[in-house]
Amino acid sequence: MTQPVTFHLADDERPTSWYNVVADLPTPPPPPLHPATHEPVGPDDLSALFPPELIAQEVTTERWVEIPEAVQEVYAQYRPAPLIRARKWEERLGTKARIYVKYEGVSPAGSHKVNTAVPQAYYNKLNGITRLTTETGAGQWGTALAYACALYDMKCEVWQVGHSYDTKPQRRTLIEVFGGTVHRSPSQMTESGKAFEEGHPGSLGIAISEAVELAAQDEGAKYALGSVLNHVLLHQTVIGQEAVKQLEKAGEDGADVVVGCAGGGSNLAGLIFPFLRGNLTEGRTTRLVAVEPSSCPTMTRGTYAYDFGDTAGLTPLMKMYTLGHDFVPSPIHAGGLRYHGMAPLVSHVVHEGLVEAVALDQDECFAAAVEFARAQGIVPAPESSHALAQARREALAADEAGTAPVIVVGLSGYGLLELGAFDSYLKGNLTGDSLLSDEELSASLATLPAVE
Amino acid sequence: MTQPVTFHLADDERPTSWYNVVADLPTPPPPPLHPATHEPVGPDDLSALFPPELIAQEVTTERWVEIPEAVQEVYAQYRPAPLIRARKWEERLGTKARIYVKYEGVSPAGSHKVNTAVPQAYYNKLNGITRLTTETGAGQWGTALAYACALYDMKCEVWQVGHSYDTKPQRRTLIEVFGGTVHRSPSQMTESGKAFEEGHPGSLGIAISEAVELAAQDEGAKYALGSVLNHVLLHQTVIGQEAVKQLEKAGEDGADVVVGCAGGGSNLAGLIFPFLRGNLTEGRTTRLVAVEPSSCPTMTRGTYAYDFGDTAGLTPLMKMYTLGHDFVPSPIHAGGLRYHGMAPLVSHVVHEGLVEAVALDQDECFAAAVEFARAQGIVPAPESSHALAQARREALAADEAGTAPVIVVGLSGYGLLELGAFDSYLKGNLTGDSLLSDEELSASLATLPAVE
Repeated sequence: MTQPVTFHLADDERPTSWYNVVADLPTPPPPPLHPATHEPVGPDDLSALFPPELIAQEVTTERWVEIPEAVQEVYAQYRPAPLIRARKWEERLGTKARIYVKYEGVSPAGSHKVNTAVPQAYYNKLNGITRLTTETGAGQWGTALAYACALYDMKCEVWQVGHSYDTKPQRRTLIEVFGGTVHRSPSQMTESGKAFEEGHPGSLGIAISEAVELAAQDEGAKYALGSVLNHVLLHQTVIGQEAVKQLEKAGEDGADVVVGCAGGGSNLAGLIFPFLRGNLTEGRTTRLVAVEPSSCPTMTRGTYAYDFGDTAGLTPLMKMYTLGHDFVPSPIHAGGLRYHGMAPLVSHVVHEGLVEAVALDQDECFAAAVEFARAQGIVPAPESSHALAQARREALAADEAGTAPVIVVGLSGYGLLELGAFDSYLKGNLTGDSLLSDEELSASLATLPAVE
Repeated sequence: MTQPVTFHLADDERPTSWYNVVADLPTPPPPPLHPATHEPVGPDDLSALFPPELIAQEVTTERWVEIPEAVQEVYAQYRPAPLIRARKWEERLGTKARIYVKYEGVSPAGSHKVNTAVPQAYYNKLNGITRLTTETGAGQWGTALAYACALYDMKCEVWQVGHSYDTKPQRRTLIEVFGGTVHRSPSQMTESGKAFEEGHPGSLGIAISEAVELAAQDEGAKYALGSVLNHVLLHQTVIGQEAVKQLEKAGEDGADVVVGCAGGGSNLAGLIFPFLRGNLTEGRTTRLVAVEPSSCPTMTRGTYAYDFGDTAGLTPLMKMYTLGHDFVPSPIHAGGLRYHGMAPLVSHVVHEGLVEAVALDQDECFAAAVEFARAQGIVPAPESSHALAQARREALAADEAGTAPVIVVGLSGYGLLELGAFDSYLKGNLTGDSLLSDEELSASLATLPAVE
């Protein structure tokens, strides 16, 4: 028998609850504030946008939140996502590190996003909602929500960041195959969109404003967010819970380091929070590393402050690492990492020193992606490539130090709809990776709202 | 606990041998003939193109052929491919049939093709070969071989059918990500290619001629074929062997009907031969159904006769269902099903009445694909959509008849690089599905070589 490389779980070993890290944190994260009064927001402030179950999950301090049976049924179609020992890549690197990849690309929409799209659609359906609006950057979130809405016979309307819409028609088609409708953002359908000239490359912040604006106007519609908020991060914790168990199956006593990419923060949080629980409650010392692009360096060069989640200032104020809510990142290919802020919960644990943050250049990430693809046969999303590049650094540094760590990498999705970016990389034509100057950064941060 | 929907196998339940159906057939399949002498070909006739291990597998009558340890190691990265109970699709169809999908899209190159690409590259590497040439239609085979060559540090050169090359640049990029080189066929690099005007849409037959021609000229190069030949079909039998065991895990006593699409025939054979073994040796009565496009109706309207495998007449003569070796199928989107012939082994079992063949229109297949995607979250390859459309027919017919069969469908790959075709379908613009007239068919068949 050959050595096992892929680790699954038995049907009765699947997570049946989501894990809420707030219950185990040494200090509570700062609350979101009302954009006008600067008072902590209550459930009522959110009810125009979200159904009550999701609002309850947003603010709960319970450690475990049960996953509804109907959602578990959908998860069972594609979960547990495989944990793969990347032996061929290890061989190519010549490393003694043992590298495990938690691969979310086998999910219906090709990324971790389905994990939260399904419960969000489900709870909205329970509340009689017939239409969901949302934004999408790289397109993975829009795809996931379109599929989830198809499951529950709901309409799905997606504002796709202009740059992504223009360069990736396949992504739009995929959303349409799943029954969704796609608009280029900024659009002329909303006041938030009309504030920008036609052909503007857009940003996640603008697209969020547009989707929020329309949802607030329609009684039968709600808004769904693909990252950032607590309930979204909560849903993603199935990733890390599975990985912890799968590592056991692989005969490992936990991980030495866990690496994930971070755009809004949900993929990272889903992977690392269950490992963070080991650090907080079992005395483990697993290093947890968040990787962001150096052209959108929210955690490594931004400020930890209250800011809006969107460009138009329609969302509550959240305490988070931010580059300023009107910051428009350069059009790098990892569209999912182009967000001015970072999930408040992720920001909090980074600020508390529980999680490290690093920033990497686009070129290094694509190089790691191609090397990984040739070894393992999986073409990673440009976003996930950031995690791979950091894992590569960790492995080579460990070899130099003479250690042989267990490295877990979050491979949040496939890059099959991003082959245009790979083509540019192979031809030496990668663009979009312009470093933020100190002056630009100061100017952007000067627009932060003043909060006591 | 929710009802299980995905069935995996334990590490020690994976197939360790390939299954050779020839050992169990009631009558032996007719041998291939030398193109000049019309005598049965011997191993020497094939040695310019293939390494000795593959030639031995081509002619063996042994029931089981051991899978080399090194190949099993690669298989272990992505196999067993999941068997998925398509409950959401069943619900949508309102059927009592139990539909199981054997999904090969989780493989490194997104289709079943890797199952044979890896052993072919492996055996060539053992024999000191440094370069492999091949053809590709939809691009799945070229992708798979490029990945396999990357594993063994060999060069991979791919002639891609012109129509596919022009319309699917992503596929070329994917092959390049895996380190392969792609040429548009017909090319100006070979005599076989020069026989056609520039811009000709090409065919698998022409692309095979080109790849064969170049391999025969270079001592360090061999040719690799992605379908048709016995050894290729042999390698694919891991699919059906796994499916038989996974059905047991699902609590089923075998299948009532097994459906696969057939272009060259390897995906179909790999899926159904292990079930055919049940019919031949255990008294089972599983119906086995091969589905082809009605615009390339090899088995349903072609002739069972000796013909060349390629357009230029460089290959041995094989007894098979054929539309004539210079037949150029209309440019439907299921590029992998555009082949003038059918694997001799598949042709034989169809001719003997052991396997049924049906032909379906492109529109019906895309409709089934979109319906399936919205239910299960998997966008199937246009090729695989043919199997889904037939499974749909089987399920609805069974409901009418008041039975509740177990249907197994071969989902040979994903359609993520074929979203242009889906876009055309959604817009009502599908083209390429022109039916073959009787006159065209007669003219094409008139070119068959005269064999006693």
